[in-house]
Amino acid sequence: MARRIGTDTVEFSGKPRVCAWSSTVGKKEAEGPLGAGFDARLEDDLLGEKTWELAEARMFQQTVERCLEKGGVDRSDVNYLLGGDLINQLMASHFAARGLEIPFIGLYGACSTMAESLAVGAMMLDGGAAQRVVCAASSHFSSAERQYRMPLEMGGRRQPSAQWTVTGAGATLLCEALFAPRPTAVITHATMGRVTDWGVKDAANMGAVMAPAAARTLQAHLMDTKRTPEDYDLIITGDLGAVGHSLFHELLGQRGIKLDDKRSADCGMMIFSGEQYAQSGGSGCGCSASVINSEIMERFSTGELKRAAFIATGALLNATSVLQGETIPAIAHLVVLESSEA
Amino acid sequence: MARRIGTDTVEFSGKPRVCAWSSTVGKKEAEGPLGAGFDARLEDDLLGEKTWELAEARMFQQTVERCLEKGGVDRSDVNYLLGGDLINQLMASHFAARGLEIPFIGLYGACSTMAESLAVGAMMLDGGAAQRVVCAASSHFSSAERQYRMPLEMGGRRQPSAQWTVTGAGATLLCEALFAPRPTAVITHATMGRVTDWGVKDAANMGAVMAPAAARTLQAHLMDTKRTPEDYDLIITGDLGAVGHSLFHELLGQRGIKLDDKRSADCGMMIFSGEQYAQSGGSGCGCSASVINSEIMERFSTGELKRAAFIATGALLNATSVLQGETIPAIAHLVVLESSEA
Repeated sequence: MARRIGTDTVEFSGKPRVCAWSSTVGKKEAEGPLGAGFDARLEDDLLGEKTWELAEARMFQQTVERCLEKGGVDRSDVNYLLGGDLINQLMASHFAARGLEIPFIGLYGACSTMAESLAVGAMMLDGGAAQRVVCAASSHFSSAERQYRMPLEMGGRRQPSAQWTVTGAGATLLCEALFAPRPTAVITHATMGRVTDWGVKDAANMGAVMAPAAARTLQAHLMDTKRTPEDYDLIITGDLGAVGHSLFHELLGQRGIKLDDKRSADCGMMIFSGEQYAQSGGSGCGCSASVINSEIMERFSTGELKRAAFIATGALLNATSVLQGETIPAIAHLVVLESSEA
Repeated sequence: MARRIGTDTVEFSGKPRVCAWSSTVGKKEAEGPLGAGFDARLEDDLLGEKTWELAEARMFQQTVERCLEKGGVDRSDVNYLLGGDLINQLMASHFAARGLEIPFIGLYGACSTMAESLAVGAMMLDGGAAQRVVCAASSHFSSAERQYRMPLEMGGRRQPSAQWTVTGAGATLLCEALFAPRPTAVITHATMGRVTDWGVKDAANMGAVMAPAAARTLQAHLMDTKRTPEDYDLIITGDLGAVGHSLFHELLGQRGIKLDDKRSADCGMMIFSGEQYAQSGGSGCGCSASVINSEIMERFSTGELKRAAFIATGALLNATSVLQGETIPAIAHLVVLESSEA
């Protein structure tokens, strides 16, 4: 049974357990600093399909299937698949869910989807509505670029503040305690975000769009739980990128929250190296989904991490709203992961 | 605390309560058979905004605000807003959520979104993750037409199987028992759907796309609960329209499920009369959202309805998938509403 604390946070008494995780990435992501840690690295970003959209759907489905295989769970024993992607109307997730045949709950939180799915999944498990759920998200550079920006063939120059949409997917199997004797980690809290808009209109600077939402959610979380950043080994944002990460620290400072660099990280900055052509860093639902479900879960399994706050951020624009001159709202959802011995 | 029964169904022990509801519709919907029952009827479908997308966002926000007002609840006392719409990346809901400042959980289930939000909201309430949630969905004829189909200015002819996207929004305030001494209705069960695809490619025949999903979810629900259609005063689908409604009955018959016409209805068929130019009936998230949050809740308040199953269906296509020649998957989510004295 979950319990509300403060204004925006839920504490889970049953501590929903992470039983398995899996990730898939494209070639460029595999060449990055975290490359060796992903379960699957694609040589062909079309996966043999005729379109990028179908390729993304296949990547989503394969990642979920591998996650269930690693957890030793048959898909008929999974109560819900929760997730989403960036393609209009969640095409990748829906086409994957069609093949998986698990009851599906479609979520859209832009790049915050991985944290949104973990939070909602944890609420369902802790409240008795499910015994096993799989949470997943994906993005694909080529399906996203042509939908949000320009035809790839145009070869447009990218601004330094721009981010590179990750081709990747991640899935986490969450189970109630009975089914998970030795979990990698447990989810102890979730803090869901409020839509925040500081008036930024530049679709090539998502970091600036999302940083205020991330700072707002972290501040609410710390107030609700009466904790400080020192209570966490790691506070990891989804994909603020270098520009957004620096703004995030600045905004926290203005609120009197001191976050040491050594306990702060961003999936978008981790997935590509400075030598790779990725401007401010990686982005897309698949960025934090693949990094959390590889490097971060691995650090929990080795005991390096005892407690981490994962704050995934989403920029809530679409091609129409930008052309209509609207500002870009953002959201950030936070979940706390703890080692099960903590 | 929720309890799983059968393979796909959740039973709510706390019986999340419907404390308030509200609906808004456009001019054409107001002229239909249910017109007098909606809370707000728009004279200007732009609501004074400069674009249809912003108009839809305003309609969404106003509907939620009116729902909270009717429930006598301040928005700061609502834990989550759960909902979605049809505009790419949930533009209407996100822009509305920005104004409402309630922690937001974005859902996408196409026209199934109203049932999806009620089901997920009920799970959260019953599991202790929330005390009050507001569930909402919207659609707007003009924002949907230009996104999914043709420029309105083209004035294309519509096929008889086509459906008319409703300009409308609906919102339901769900509360835990403590905060709702005299609820209109309670939610007793939810059965979440699996993505179903019978190979239909005709985007002008959504009824045929969605009917198999509706039949599958109802069958699973009846098996899980060991009930028959006679246990319900009303089994109401979201927006199958006349074509889909007839296929739904045929598919149920093939499964040995006899559903009397007198206890069967479809929001898409109710919202427009045969004299209105709407082909097979209404569609869009706002169709079932506005009908459930007016006529149906009203029938619960007068005692006419004691128990109803609401099955909202969604066609999971997008403009790209249709152009790429893909078949159209569908989903249907079911929630059971009961009068609180039942």
